[in-house]
Amino acid sequence: MGSSQDGNSSQAGGSLRGAGVSPGVGVGPVRTIAGAVPEPPAGFRHGGDAAAERAVAAAALEAVAADLEDRGDRAAAVGNTDGRDVLNAQALMARDPGLADGVGARIDDGAAAPRAVFEAFGVYRDMLAGAGEYMAARVTDLDDIRDRAIARLLGLPMPGVPASDEPFVLVARDLAPADTAVLDPARVVAFVTEEGGPTSHTAILARTMGVPAVVALPGATSLADGTRVLVDGSAGTVVPDPSDAEVAAARAAVAARASALADSTGPGATKDGHAVPLLANIGGPKDVGAALENGAEGVGLYRTEFLFLDRSTPPSADEQEDAYRRVLEAFPDGRVVVRTLDAGADKPLAFLPAPAEEPNPALGERGLRMTRLHPEVLSAQLAALARAASGLPVKLQVMAPMVADAEEAAYFAGVCRDAGIEHPGVMIEIPAAALRARDLAPEVEFFSIGTNDLTQYTCAADRQVGALAGLQDPWQPAVLDLVAPAAGAGVPCGVCGEAAGDPALACVLVGLGVTSLSMSAPSLPLVRAALARHTLDECRRAASAARAARTAAEARDAARAHLPHLADLGV
Amino acid sequence: MGSSQDGNSSQAGGSLRGAGVSPGVGVGPVRTIAGAVPEPPAGFRHGGDAAAERAVAAAALEAVAADLEDRGDRAAAVGNTDGRDVLNAQALMARDPGLADGVGARIDDGAAAPRAVFEAFGVYRDMLAGAGEYMAARVTDLDDIRDRAIARLLGLPMPGVPASDEPFVLVARDLAPADTAVLDPARVVAFVTEEGGPTSHTAILARTMGVPAVVALPGATSLADGTRVLVDGSAGTVVPDPSDAEVAAARAAVAARASALADSTGPGATKDGHAVPLLANIGGPKDVGAALENGAEGVGLYRTEFLFLDRSTPPSADEQEDAYRRVLEAFPDGRVVVRTLDAGADKPLAFLPAPAEEPNPALGERGLRMTRLHPEVLSAQLAALARAASGLPVKLQVMAPMVADAEEAAYFAGVCRDAGIEHPGVMIEIPAAALRARDLAPEVEFFSIGTNDLTQYTCAADRQVGALAGLQDPWQPAVLDLVAPAAGAGVPCGVCGEAAGDPALACVLVGLGVTSLSMSAPSLPLVRAALARHTLDECRRAASAARAARTAAEARDAARAHLPHLADLGV
Repeated sequence: MGSSQDGNSSQAGGSLRGAGVSPGVGVGPVRTIAGAVPEPPAGFRHGGDAAAERAVAAAALEAVAADLEDRGDRAAAVGNTDGRDVLNAQALMARDPGLADGVGARIDDGAAAPRAVFEAFGVYRDMLAGAGEYMAARVTDLDDIRDRAIARLLGLPMPGVPASDEPFVLVARDLAPADTAVLDPARVVAFVTEEGGPTSHTAILARTMGVPAVVALPGATSLADGTRVLVDGSAGTVVPDPSDAEVAAARAAVAARASALADSTGPGATKDGHAVPLLANIGGPKDVGAALENGAEGVGLYRTEFLFLDRSTPPSADEQEDAYRRVLEAFPDGRVVVRTLDAGADKPLAFLPAPAEEPNPALGERGLRMTRLHPEVLSAQLAALARAASGLPVKLQVMAPMVADAEEAAYFAGVCRDAGIEHPGVMIEIPAAALRARDLAPEVEFFSIGTNDLTQYTCAADRQVGALAGLQDPWQPAVLDLVAPAAGAGVPCGVCGEAAGDPALACVLVGLGVTSLSMSAPSLPLVRAALARHTLDECRRAASAARAARTAAEARDAARAHLPHLADLGV
Repeated sequence: MGSSQDGNSSQAGGSLRGAGVSPGVGVGPVRTIAGAVPEPPAGFRHGGDAAAERAVAAAALEAVAADLEDRGDRAAAVGNTDGRDVLNAQALMARDPGLADGVGARIDDGAAAPRAVFEAFGVYRDMLAGAGEYMAARVTDLDDIRDRAIARLLGLPMPGVPASDEPFVLVARDLAPADTAVLDPARVVAFVTEEGGPTSHTAILARTMGVPAVVALPGATSLADGTRVLVDGSAGTVVPDPSDAEVAAARAAVAARASALADSTGPGATKDGHAVPLLANIGGPKDVGAALENGAEGVGLYRTEFLFLDRSTPPSADEQEDAYRRVLEAFPDGRVVVRTLDAGADKPLAFLPAPAEEPNPALGERGLRMTRLHPEVLSAQLAALARAASGLPVKLQVMAPMVADAEEAAYFAGVCRDAGIEHPGVMIEIPAAALRARDLAPEVEFFSIGTNDLTQYTCAADRQVGALAGLQDPWQPAVLDLVAPAAGAGVPCGVCGEAAGDPALACVLVGLGVTSLSMSAPSLPLVRAALARHTLDECRRAASAARAARTAAEARDAARAHLPHLADLGV
């Protein structure tokens, strides 16, 4: 199961093989995110001075809180306000007076400070864990505070991302957003994780940062700290103690690719001139610069959640209009595809009544289902979009997330037209919508396939569960079987999932009839180069071969056999 | 959204229309599950005698605990040990000393007992609710205890199922397992709920009890307590204050159907003699009697979780063998299809290491994914099944849940054959497995389509979220689109979801090529009668018409137009 079923996780020669999820080569010493802080033994008692021990414990907790706040400030300084909020919430927990009382009471009973901290946190932990089937996400945050306090009291290395003045290869079991909030991109030359898949946080972060990454590498955390490794994020390999020749060869391949990429400019098209507009996925105006630098012909997915989450009042009309116009103005000759708010029980909006808790938020009232319960939010967003586009030459397209059937597509198109949006569309990310694409097509002007969620639902494999990486692979032939009817339903059909940024899969998608591709900006040059080296007919043959395969790995290999010029690009 | 998109929830004439999910007619006075207990006002203080007020509060909590235990005993007495365990766990919570201390401290500060209870529970509640995105399921249990204690202190009606000596129609927003654990089937003549869908707890319970039920009925809880209503679970209607003629007509229709059903015996087959074995879904040996009484030709889904859940050690080889043989012996001339253990993060096994918590357990490591991590559990189950069948004439078939692709199917078939199981199969309940059924078919001997989960994944709509009932409908044309390739892949293909128990949909499934149908035992006679009245060709035309439709409601109507004799049966 997991990635091993793709045969892509094994040891090959002197190198370790995982799944390459962000291309490029990095060389540097391993720095591993410290492992678990051990449990202080149950009989661990202090010397007798309870007051002094209480002071030590209190100081440790306060130091942890202050450090978390400091990390929060640093996260905010690099523009990561979400990270700051998570870290500040943790600092509040570390300063919880009830927790301090619990620690003090145990010290008064004779327990040493580390043991007292462990036990007092345990009470909160059990209470959360006792929440039954749906474990509190907060338990991880609580454990992190506990481990930091105990590490401080016992003089152990602090868990989390290690401090380093020299560039290093960051190795971990898996990376959580909290681990990476304060990462300095200039210091990390590559990521290597034992878990994770192509849509894991690590993979998306690495591609966004333009740093090579290999995930799903068995034994990654067994690499000794300080070992020099060569990480090839295109080949998916990690070579410990590489020879100079190996490093030189890998760098030469990267240089060759860089040169090929430098020649790859202009609008996206196949070798025989079939145009395939190449667009960028963005999360706000801040991402426009990278999109332009990488030659995006427009935006294929403008995620608008940043305007709505983590605030107690809805964004004003002016604030929305401004955020939209700053993106729309950047592409006077292109298009911008805006996705309306995609919130749900797992990303609730603080300014709306709390949604009912859901056992499986990914299958719940999210996306259009949620905004349909609050039509004033949707119509305000659409009105702001229409105003923002007014008078600009850009083609504004607006699409709804989580659309299942023709009735929902018709509803959304109607609301769009009422708001003056001329080009409504829908995401195809639910299997039913792909299967019945011919029913949805008459209702809208375009489709955009979200391969991440489509793969998640088609294979019933949570994107957030690393052990299911093998099933979260958009190369799964079943997923390609669903792309085909969506791409053939008679309306323009883009792809805006991470799949579009895989050069080989991008060719396959074009072969299936997809009309535009949208991806993280750093992926654009390589995809542009891959398309430019293959004819539409080669893409079609690659697509047929992939659909004829039985597994994701076989589909990938079968497609590549029809895409001979990928090798020139080192992919 | 929701059921309203099917056009099946509206007022029609003098009757209210919802979704009929369990057939039959019931007449009786409305008894509504009491609504929310109000919050005692913030300034509510006691008279000054804190000790007396503490005693009052303690007595109320103890009375709640004792009542919960008593309800647990009654649940156990009707065979519902799961219900007993839930209720006993709640009683433990009500007696939590920390909670009692919290109540006492607030009373010492002057708060009246009801307010003190409300606030003290609030601390626990916030802690659980602070668990962030994945709300603790336990919060509902905690609120129930709080509301019971406050209701007792304020002299309000107790929340939950009302006591009644005369038969009644139970009306609720929705029914939870805890509400129904102590229901006396002899006292409930029908269920009516505002929420819920065809696979909701209410629907499944009603069909299992053989009680008519209408769900997704807007305004159900506005029916005044004591109002006499006529509930038609076939038509999906509720008529307040029905005339004697209306009751007589409804009962005559039921009698006509009963007469038709009485003539419906023998093996399942279409009018023109195309055999379609009709099988029962069972949860253990206790359900064999009902299966035989309703003429089941075997078991199409033997859920084996009852052997594994809620116990600290795995079931012994003898215990398993005994439970399997008691079912296998009951069908000497038939078949028994056993589903191997289907557990996951939402139904963890206490005797295995706790699984990682998952944000979406329905998309996580459940079913075969989980047993593959613990192969000793699976091989012990298969070995016990092989021993149980040894020497018996019955055909034992064994299938795995949550199979996504051919590799998993091949793995399971191999493990089965190693254990001496001759007829391995897989559930088709993941869209990928249905789409690629031709790849899975060579690996196994049979398929069984689980329409409940297949619908959930195909439409990305959680079975547990009532508001998404319209998308959880197996009549969704996209779901029928996935049944077709599974049924046409070249191996026998049954259906064991609730869809098989819908007489019209059963005909459609046969028309799509399904070779056997398995359902709750009480649904068997009506499905047998429906099949016997229609030719295979009529079933095929109904299937084609349903797939040509755009919505679930249109598919149902289109199919029925080709199944003219359903009306004879009052469906």
